[in-house]
Amino acid sequence: MALEPLKVGICGLGTVAQGVLEVLATNRDSITRRAGREVKVTQVASRRAKPEVDLCGAEFSTDVVALAASPDIDVLVELIGGEDTALELVTTALGRGTPVVTGNKAVVALHGNELLPLAAEHKTQLGFEAAVAGSIPIIASLNRSLAANQHEWLAGIINGTSNFILSAMTQGGRAFADALAEAQALGYAEADPTFDVEGIDAAHKLTILTALAFDVGFDFRSIYTEGISHLSAEDIEYAGQLGYRIKHLGIARRRERGIEARVHPVLVPDQHLLANIGDAMNAVLVHSNAAGDTLYSGAGAGALPTASAVVADLIDIARGTARLPSPAADVNLPILPIAETESAYYLRIPSVDRPGAFARVATILSEREISIEAAIQREEARVLTRGPDAGDGAWVPIVILTHSVREAVMNEALQAVQALPEVVGEIMRIRVEHFDEGNQ
Amino acid sequence: MALEPLKVGICGLGTVAQGVLEVLATNRDSITRRAGREVKVTQVASRRAKPEVDLCGAEFSTDVVALAASPDIDVLVELIGGEDTALELVTTALGRGTPVVTGNKAVVALHGNELLPLAAEHKTQLGFEAAVAGSIPIIASLNRSLAANQHEWLAGIINGTSNFILSAMTQGGRAFADALAEAQALGYAEADPTFDVEGIDAAHKLTILTALAFDVGFDFRSIYTEGISHLSAEDIEYAGQLGYRIKHLGIARRRERGIEARVHPVLVPDQHLLANIGDAMNAVLVHSNAAGDTLYSGAGAGALPTASAVVADLIDIARGTARLPSPAADVNLPILPIAETESAYYLRIPSVDRPGAFARVATILSEREISIEAAIQREEARVLTRGPDAGDGAWVPIVILTHSVREAVMNEALQAVQALPEVVGEIMRIRVEHFDEGNQ
Repeated sequence: MALEPLKVGICGLGTVAQGVLEVLATNRDSITRRAGREVKVTQVASRRAKPEVDLCGAEFSTDVVALAASPDIDVLVELIGGEDTALELVTTALGRGTPVVTGNKAVVALHGNELLPLAAEHKTQLGFEAAVAGSIPIIASLNRSLAANQHEWLAGIINGTSNFILSAMTQGGRAFADALAEAQALGYAEADPTFDVEGIDAAHKLTILTALAFDVGFDFRSIYTEGISHLSAEDIEYAGQLGYRIKHLGIARRRERGIEARVHPVLVPDQHLLANIGDAMNAVLVHSNAAGDTLYSGAGAGALPTASAVVADLIDIARGTARLPSPAADVNLPILPIAETESAYYLRIPSVDRPGAFARVATILSEREISIEAAIQREEARVLTRGPDAGDGAWVPIVILTHSVREAVMNEALQAVQALPEVVGEIMRIRVEHFDEGNQ
Repeated sequence: MALEPLKVGICGLGTVAQGVLEVLATNRDSITRRAGREVKVTQVASRRAKPEVDLCGAEFSTDVVALAASPDIDVLVELIGGEDTALELVTTALGRGTPVVTGNKAVVALHGNELLPLAAEHKTQLGFEAAVAGSIPIIASLNRSLAANQHEWLAGIINGTSNFILSAMTQGGRAFADALAEAQALGYAEADPTFDVEGIDAAHKLTILTALAFDVGFDFRSIYTEGISHLSAEDIEYAGQLGYRIKHLGIARRRERGIEARVHPVLVPDQHLLANIGDAMNAVLVHSNAAGDTLYSGAGAGALPTASAVVADLIDIARGTARLPSPAADVNLPILPIAETESAYYLRIPSVDRPGAFARVATILSEREISIEAAIQREEARVLTRGPDAGDGAWVPIVILTHSVREAVMNEALQAVQALPEVVGEIMRIRVEHFDEGNQ
């Protein structure tokens, strides 16, 4: 090829950056052929001292800001993580017209509304396939392959740590703390797992998916976020009896008045493909008005899978075929408050074992036109009750699946149920999705 | 936007072409925003008389060749199907430097080796996302999103008709002819279902996937092709007992001496995602050296899903971000003859019910170092035998799962087994895949 190599500067030298170096070295011939020119890392900068890593001939420095502003690179790859410095690097490079590839979901989710116009203004590119769901080409699919569609909804398992923990709880009947400890031992969870298990990481990713799918801009702060640390083996077991598995999903859905965008545990029918995405795998299901349902699944994290996405963006830049998402539509639909969203619910109501308790709960629901789809009888439930609750036999949970209802109505109903004298503990509620044509 | 509309000429006015018109009309605003300009069908040509279809202002003619050569269109969309005329249209347009979008898998599979260089020579584009697996962006994924990878193997459910029939046989314990009749009644199968149920359609698609994944060029004639019409409910039931489902797959895999590329029924572990792709859905699983396993699933056919892929290609052309696959590598790996491929096998051997029959079969296998992984005992098998075979009780099948072996060795072994006096009918063999790291 007559073309000059694409000179790549990488900021950061953690596992993903090392993965990028490894992929570029291992697959060099095929990448050169597909990119039409060599993709060559010429400079690497990391704020820490240089680790024992083969930089394949790239220069090393500790001045990440200088690298982002360097005239000697054709592309900046931002992989330092965190928010403030990363944002500075990305802004600096884009402001110079240097294309940027980043795996930084926080920076894109929190600053996408400024960064995409900045890239467009300077006629350059911002690739962020690696920011969501690792190797899975969900950004390319929303931005390009599904561009002919209007999307009705999407639902994704977009945090591998939470999926691993829930899979372990489901398969082994184990408690959250047990499963978390295993995830930590295997390197699937950080020492401080808050970002993953409380849903923040997933909310960053859902912010990006929602912006691309519905042309509404990036609005992380409006996304309802609930993690998995409050889930019990008991709820997973009841869900199983009812024909469901509990998954941690990011869901976005177009409604008339706005967009629902929410991250929380969900009961998913156990035959559904999303229910069968195990271990630390990710998957995103998109329902669109022409394509119908399309599903994308794969490794959501890890050095090489994430590097695969980074290098795909680099090849697009090398070929001149990268493409920014179109700007947000003029008429932005708002993200709806969670109280305005609609969902079916699983309810577990700790109740004294007294005749009439179920009837009083059912009456409260019925007065608000909340229909019951299924319930687990007390006798069964008693047998299944686990832990301290089961000790005295004096109370048992009432487990109910409802049909779809607006969350505000459910909140009122649950306040009334919670106030019943028969209800002796905090009610557990988990949303339920059937994924049928956008209305469950 | 200041840009002129992209003027599209469509040859063909069947269901997919009508789907393209519908998608462009329904999603016009978002398509215009994403394409950066209007995507406007200005001319439609069909060799048949104009049907009662709203052409949204496009001119109609019956001269498809003239439209392909027209200087008044910016892109040709070829949707007439068939081979000879379609090839002429595509060649004519590309030769004039007019970009082409086609859903014609036969034309791409049989003539891709000439068409891609022709497009490159005239510095134009050939989009064929719609040719494989309808709405699923598997072409874009291989060509772009996974471009950083070398692929080890891929396996796909790429014929919806066959998948529908096998799903119906599996769920209902029904015979092939029954399930085919249902598929025909529902419009999933043609009156003459040969192309679908004998694997030819899938082999066209696998030709394209293999060319893109392994840079080996398009070689339809070297692909081993076997359909599903010889499968019996009995085999589906034995497979189920052994923990497998039977799916019709296209499989391509890199081996040291060449590429395996083959279309045939396969026993898939019943917990595997591919085993759970039901109805007429398609799915492709790709195993790559950086990304690992990625799965793509969705509707493989239908007017709107296929139109979604056509219009995605049009938007890429409107934006100037379309991209031809890189040319085949200089050192082409050959497609291996089926006798040179490796696989595990399911064998059903009709045998007289006499002591020692199983031992003689096992000895023949063992002499060729074919290990048995599992077998169904005669007593069980007898109960399960269906149809005329079960009548006199004088013979029962021996059902065996083997470990992986070269097909040529298995052929020899089966010749010897078939010659045993105890074997009283034709042996059924179905390949087995475990998808573990490329070697089952």
